[in-house]
Amino acid sequence: MKPDSNTPDSLPRVIIVGGGFGGLAAARELKEVRAQVGLIDKTNHHVFQPLLYQVATGILSPEHIAAPLRHVLGKQTNTIVLKETVIGVDAEKKLCVVEGVMTGAPVSLPYDYLVLATGVQNNYFGNDEYAPFAPGLKTIADADGLRNRILGAFENCERTLDPKAHPELLTFVIVGAGPTGVELAGAIAELARLTLASEFRRFSPTSLRILLVGSDPRVLPPFHESLGAAAKAKLEKMGVEVWTGTRVDKVDAEGVIIKGERIPSRNVFWTAGVKPSPAAKWLGVEADKGGRVKVLADCSVPGHPEVFVVGDTAAFEKNGKPLPGVAPVAIQQGRYVGRLIAGRLRGKPAPRPFKYFDKGNMATISQGFAVMESFGMRKAGLFAKLAWAFVHIQFLVLPSNRFSTAFQWLRVILTHQRLARLIIEPDRPNPGETQP
Amino acid sequence: MKPDSNTPDSLPRVIIVGGGFGGLAAARELKEVRAQVGLIDKTNHHVFQPLLYQVATGILSPEHIAAPLRHVLGKQTNTIVLKETVIGVDAEKKLCVVEGVMTGAPVSLPYDYLVLATGVQNNYFGNDEYAPFAPGLKTIADADGLRNRILGAFENCERTLDPKAHPELLTFVIVGAGPTGVELAGAIAELARLTLASEFRRFSPTSLRILLVGSDPRVLPPFHESLGAAAKAKLEKMGVEVWTGTRVDKVDAEGVIIKGERIPSRNVFWTAGVKPSPAAKWLGVEADKGGRVKVLADCSVPGHPEVFVVGDTAAFEKNGKPLPGVAPVAIQQGRYVGRLIAGRLRGKPAPRPFKYFDKGNMATISQGFAVMESFGMRKAGLFAKLAWAFVHIQFLVLPSNRFSTAFQWLRVILTHQRLARLIIEPDRPNPGETQP
Repeated sequence: MKPDSNTPDSLPRVIIVGGGFGGLAAARELKEVRAQVGLIDKTNHHVFQPLLYQVATGILSPEHIAAPLRHVLGKQTNTIVLKETVIGVDAEKKLCVVEGVMTGAPVSLPYDYLVLATGVQNNYFGNDEYAPFAPGLKTIADADGLRNRILGAFENCERTLDPKAHPELLTFVIVGAGPTGVELAGAIAELARLTLASEFRRFSPTSLRILLVGSDPRVLPPFHESLGAAAKAKLEKMGVEVWTGTRVDKVDAEGVIIKGERIPSRNVFWTAGVKPSPAAKWLGVEADKGGRVKVLADCSVPGHPEVFVVGDTAAFEKNGKPLPGVAPVAIQQGRYVGRLIAGRLRGKPAPRPFKYFDKGNMATISQGFAVMESFGMRKAGLFAKLAWAFVHIQFLVLPSNRFSTAFQWLRVILTHQRLARLIIEPDRPNPGETQP
Repeated sequence: MKPDSNTPDSLPRVIIVGGGFGGLAAARELKEVRAQVGLIDKTNHHVFQPLLYQVATGILSPEHIAAPLRHVLGKQTNTIVLKETVIGVDAEKKLCVVEGVMTGAPVSLPYDYLVLATGVQNNYFGNDEYAPFAPGLKTIADADGLRNRILGAFENCERTLDPKAHPELLTFVIVGAGPTGVELAGAIAELARLTLASEFRRFSPTSLRILLVGSDPRVLPPFHESLGAAAKAKLEKMGVEVWTGTRVDKVDAEGVIIKGERIPSRNVFWTAGVKPSPAAKWLGVEADKGGRVKVLADCSVPGHPEVFVVGDTAAFEKNGKPLPGVAPVAIQQGRYVGRLIAGRLRGKPAPRPFKYFDKGNMATISQGFAVMESFGMRKAGLFAKLAWAFVHIQFLVLPSNRFSTAFQWLRVILTHQRLARLIIEPDRPNPGETQP
């Protein structure tokens, strides 16, 4: 890594892989240290994943919830940002291997400290053939794709001369009743009822059918039972069919099969589970049964005190249970590891073990209804929704994101309009047209 | 067309193809008539094409310059919006043939009046093989693709260990020195100089090379010579190499060949020309040598008084010269034809022939510099830029677009930040990763 030609090559090198909550928090803690810091991400932006469902349903634009990493770290002159794809790690030789751009041959970047904050991807539990028919929601590109599908469903229904004969067009099946599934189901229901209701002529958008299917006996399994029940009641009131304790037998181009019954649907979305990045494989170290890297009390990897794993891709045990894959864990671990490395570079003694400070959980269902549990307090309704909005605005990385998101929310609530509802597809040549 | 079940089938049917400036203007004029109006577009939005270059360079988001057609016409209850692709017209039987959605078989929609406002597409003048290497800028998807390429060029340069050895990465070749080419060249130069300059470590973004290549002896050929010269001088001051009177011999994956010389470039963009939609072919009527439908003084097609062609795809002669392919022509023709049809449906006499009211031309070069000519007045500089901004804001179709675009412009000018600069690409599996 050569951050710039003025930096002596003798400075210690810190490579952080992943520009999500964990990686960005670690990078920011290294602002003042005399080191060459490199932040590597596949994309050029940090994205606030918990709000992707709002991009998928036309409430927010991608620009509201994403920030160019280069801009966020632009003034941090000891840090270089690389839009690169990591393909492996040589933990013995302390090399991080990336794709490279020009020759096609991989490039090895030497490090003194390595932080892997590489997150998770969709988990189809061995049924990867479902992926094209049941996309998930992890990136801005995913959210754009989902938005095309959701809005396209209504458009296609208007195109048919007989919408009633084609229930598959307006049946939405959301597999997974965790926070993302619940939030997506609620947002689609509101999109139809509040925004689209008056804009179609051949059918009523409120005639849509939304199935929320979860294998757990309750919705929002990480939350207290009473909040799961409140969320379920609210969703049902909004017209969502909530099928808990139910597994999907099959997903294909025609829809889903549940309990032997075929449910025709062109709109199946997958929020049922995640699997970690291949960090454990890269490092050749022990993983838990989900595939996450087992880390020590300081988030380092056993046998490699200079390698750290944080966030969703790390298995950090607390009272025998791994910490959940949520943003606050990633942020706190990233910050801890960033400070630890900064301290070590300054010759300070090792800090106390990482300790997660759990501020609670929240999930939103409608414009005026959310559930939250925090410090023993449980709330379902408008108060929880206001707390949700406040906390989520805080989490956005740039002040300009915060301002524009708050403003957009206000606009959507007041006007019920969702103007970020563009279907953006590459143009095709007209079928009837011959090239000149 | 069945706009809704309450509309008697006996009402006259008006089909408008294309939701650009012309089609939308026609549709809005038909608001009050007792008719079934159908507006058909391939996309679900109207887009303000003259500002696409700002989306391609991260100044604006797609949402700033696009508006869902369904929302724009939502309250116009006699009108149905269809996201459909027209594949032909049967002018004898008065049928508009669309792709259809469910069966794969085309669907024929009967009309009493037909308005074709189907615009233009890129013209590679017989070299369609250039298209993948030299994309154009006609749709939001095009603008997103260009933004990925432009920003990706800087990202790839930072990824190489030796940027100087790879001039092709940071060489931008813009083919076509009309308004779009000039505006794109200026916006890329400012992106590098104002926004990106401090954010890279291995190279200076201002070391980029921008070539603007035009076959005409001057830039902005439709403008007065003095304004073309002023635009050229300003571009050159901004570091753009302006090659007028120059043709590109070849475009391929390695770059371009100009006057026998190979110029390596990964970033070739095509703004050199347009060709009309296949409307003349659909109708089986006479076209001018560019392929545009020759229309009569009321914008109707000879032999088909119920068929009208407006905007870029029509050849309307004035003093022996066709009107230019610009937004004001499309808007004025669309409005004229909408009123004409509304009048005919009400039994009013035929209006006077269409007359284009030319308010002038403008093109922008930098944040503080534009050129304009209007009612004999010619200006180059800040005044023209302010006029440009004012006029372009006016043209945006929704008040909310106007407000948010004005606000965003102010933000970009004050902060030099372009936060709408996301590279949005579908995720690929990690090359080193095996599927579980």
